[in-house]
Amino acid sequence: MIRYLHLAGRLKEHIQMGHFAPGDKLPSVRQLAAEHGVSLSTVQEAYRVLEQEGLIEARARSGYFVAQLRERIARPAESQPPQRPMDVSLWEDVLDMLTGYGGETFCEFQYAMPIMTAPTLKPLLKSLYELNRHRAQDGMSYGNIQGDLGLREQLSRLAAGAGSHLEAGDFVVTSGCQEALSVCLRSVAENGDVIAVESPGFYGAMQAIKAANLKALEIPTDSVAGMSIEALKLALDQWPVKAILVTPTVNNPQGYVMPLAKKQALYQLAQEYDVAIIEDDIYGDIAFDYPRPKTIKSFDTDGRVLLCSSFSKSLAPGFRVGWIAPGRYRDKVLHIKYVSSSMCPTLPQLAIASFIRQGGYERHLRAMRVLYRKARDGMLKGIEACFPEGTRVSYPEGGFVLWVALPDRFDATRLAEQAKQQGIILAPGQMFSATGKYRNCLRFNYIDRDPDTRLAALKTLGNMMSANDT
Amino acid sequence: MIRYLHLAGRLKEHIQMGHFAPGDKLPSVRQLAAEHGVSLSTVQEAYRVLEQEGLIEARARSGYFVAQLRERIARPAESQPPQRPMDVSLWEDVLDMLTGYGGETFCEFQYAMPIMTAPTLKPLLKSLYELNRHRAQDGMSYGNIQGDLGLREQLSRLAAGAGSHLEAGDFVVTSGCQEALSVCLRSVAENGDVIAVESPGFYGAMQAIKAANLKALEIPTDSVAGMSIEALKLALDQWPVKAILVTPTVNNPQGYVMPLAKKQALYQLAQEYDVAIIEDDIYGDIAFDYPRPKTIKSFDTDGRVLLCSSFSKSLAPGFRVGWIAPGRYRDKVLHIKYVSSSMCPTLPQLAIASFIRQGGYERHLRAMRVLYRKARDGMLKGIEACFPEGTRVSYPEGGFVLWVALPDRFDATRLAEQAKQQGIILAPGQMFSATGKYRNCLRFNYIDRDPDTRLAALKTLGNMMSANDT
Ligand SMILES: Cc1ncc(COP(=O)(O)O)c(C=O)c1O
Ligand SMILES: Cc1ncc(COP(=O)(O)O)c(C=O)c1O
Repeated sequence: MIRYLHLAGRLKEHIQMGHFAPGDKLPSVRQLAAEHGVSLSTVQEAYRVLEQEGLIEARARSGYFVAQLRERIARPAESQPPQRPMDVSLWEDVLDMLTGYGGETFCEFQYAMPIMTAPTLKPLLKSLYELNRHRAQDGMSYGNIQGDLGLREQLSRLAAGAGSHLEAGDFVVTSGCQEALSVCLRSVAENGDVIAVESPGFYGAMQAIKAANLKALEIPTDSVAGMSIEALKLALDQWPVKAILVTPTVNNPQGYVMPLAKKQALYQLAQEYDVAIIEDDIYGDIAFDYPRPKTIKSFDTDGRVLLCSSFSKSLAPGFRVGWIAPGRYRDKVLHIKYVSSSMCPTLPQLAIASFIRQGGYERHLRAMRVLYRKARDGMLKGIEACFPEGTRVSYPEGGFVLWVALPDRFDATRLAEQAKQQGIILAPGQMFSATGKYRNCLRFNYIDRDPDTRLAALKTLGNMMSANDT
Repeated sequence: MIRYLHLAGRLKEHIQMGHFAPGDKLPSVRQLAAEHGVSLSTVQEAYRVLEQEGLIEARARSGYFVAQLRERIARPAESQPPQRPMDVSLWEDVLDMLTGYGGETFCEFQYAMPIMTAPTLKPLLKSLYELNRHRAQDGMSYGNIQGDLGLREQLSRLAAGAGSHLEAGDFVVTSGCQEALSVCLRSVAENGDVIAVESPGFYGAMQAIKAANLKALEIPTDSVAGMSIEALKLALDQWPVKAILVTPTVNNPQGYVMPLAKKQALYQLAQEYDVAIIEDDIYGDIAFDYPRPKTIKSFDTDGRVLLCSSFSKSLAPGFRVGWIAPGRYRDKVLHIKYVSSSMCPTLPQLAIASFIRQGGYERHLRAMRVLYRKARDGMLKGIEACFPEGTRVSYPEGGFVLWVALPDRFDATRLAEQAKQQGIILAPGQMFSATGKYRNCLRFNYIDRDPDTRLAALKTLGNMMSANDT
């Protein structure tokens, strides 16, 4: 391999392993050249590569630093939802978004799908194709009711990396994380029960609460640290909450990672009030930090945490491979999962298991973290440049979506209508509330199309908003 | 093609098209030879082929007749379940069966999976792996929320064959028929509501009733004509029933096809009492009669029938492709389906759609009908020969399972325990009741392994029962 690329690769590893933290100064060019026995220009080329990837930044007369997010726009303030149990509405808005836009589009900011054209996915697709060719019979039977054992063994390894000791027998494979959430809700709560949720929070979870005839209790949520523990405690005092449903690690829509101490505090609160925690970890593996942040489940000593996840964000949603680590709710979860859709298809499970076993999953995640982080930085700059003053934005620590709060006078649904005329598709914020709050907010992915297209689309949106303003 | 095979093929078509009905005398050898301009021995060879397939039978000195089921063992009497709404139990029994038997087995009578090694499935498997090779990207996205449009167009064609005019937009694709049933139950009923079911009936539906916190009201059911309309009417008078859940066309476990007039009567009763009908048609396409029997849905003028089905019995369960034609409940069904598992994988849908479009599905069904019918006849003879006097048996009109009622003194669960020691796996009858009735009953498939193995296994079972008897 060309020498500077090799060096860049090694430096990148060091950064990703956390040997250098965001903001840290990197060794000087001279120093590094001496250390590695290469020329100054080789080091300079290597640094240039990392700079282009957005991993490091040059500061005039000071040298190179590990890139650090500079927050040039304010973050949204802690949310203030109505603090009482509510029926979830807004299904029509969700359906509208899911149904998609038939025509040609210019930029689709509305969905949350990972990059699926990455070369690091190729071995997975090849193995899936080969399984379909050579083990078609295995694909035709009902599989194992808990999911393929080989996959569950790999899930057990992944869980160790997130701080939990879980055996293969502790998992139940599901049709994506959506089924996982739905099954867990139905396993811990009954007709009319109250579920505490983040606000804003994932609409699929809100709608699952609705479909199970439960009520959502939206808890004030901070765009840096997640659900407010104080507000949660007040809510637990006041209402008969059955479970807390949270996405604490790379939240959807805001992208924050709840600090570890706060995850522990949340767990302890759940213990104190004897409620279950449904922890949605679907974005956990694509947090930008490496090693990945630990889960709430990692504190779980009495089995009250039902961990839900899937490969929909880390690989691709079409595989529909998700899972639950249901803790003490295992029997109920297995029953509800069986009636919900019986067994899951076997071949995608086999393909993913061998992809993980052979290191392909780690390699893919490493590549995606770099891509997503760089895309985030570009998006933040674009929003800063194009959106009206007073706009607030969340600073995701992983994944590929962020949350924008426009100044209150803007109506996101109207903006979305207007934008659609130009082929720019948006996800209005109200879906992320049980009751239609966040009418000035939007969730954006920052990976559809290419950076130039995204920037052009942001400019168009910015112009629209100025025009509306006058 | 060899001349006699060609002739046999044409005769088979005539029989399957219903030009000759069961019991009809076929033309004499001489007559047929003259008609087709072939030799007598060609006709004799052709008749021999059909005789081997179990489609026709020779009667001494009378000639050949279209095979007719001779009922040498009595059928089970109409069932007499407790006629009040009950909580469903028996999940442990179901789980036990689904978990399967780890060791080597001699014959597995317990499950209900179609023959999946048939050469007529090859084109489907080929198209699936080619899609995995060439359209991998399509497989990775979330698909259409209602299911692939191309598949739904084919479903619309199939529905026409079952007597319903349904457009592509009238279908919602699901992860198998299990999800279809579960979604429909949750769409028409709420906490504590009562669902009328056949007794015995499919355990997956019973368990879905349990999981949705509904109550099952088992209705007396006849092994020839299905659910008793009189008993149903009494039940509707007495209890606040929300929906009637039936598998009227090739019932699981009994295999009957409810007569068309009775299907109509059931529909009219549902209208009269304003309740919904959830019609499970999963075995409908492998009824032995051709063209296939019409559905209750074919009478549906006001959208109260939610038709559920899948390709799990007609093709293979591992594809997990099912569907709902939800009638007037469409919006609710779409919501519950979305929260239940979001979209279904696209590639299996594409593969099946093109298999149907190209005629492969019809070809496969034709081949399976012949195989299953022949297997049924062999099984009935085996049971007659091996099982104790007083055994009753259902005479399936399609599919690959039948229902055996042993004399009352037998305990099917104990027999199953004993049989397991010999590697013979059984499905005790109590799972097919909400409350553990049918303790002397068993459901058998008649297609595991080969006829000789099945017969040997039946002999072993027969010997066990005689030994128990003394
Ligand atoms: C937070 C969160 N949970 C769950 C899901 C559903 O995931 P899946 O596609 O695996 O069902 C999503 C997908 O958008 C999500 O963002
Ligand atoms: C009558 C009946 N309905 C539904 C199902 C579930 O079918 P699927 O495997 O398509 O979920 C079965 C499978 O055993 C069945 O026999």
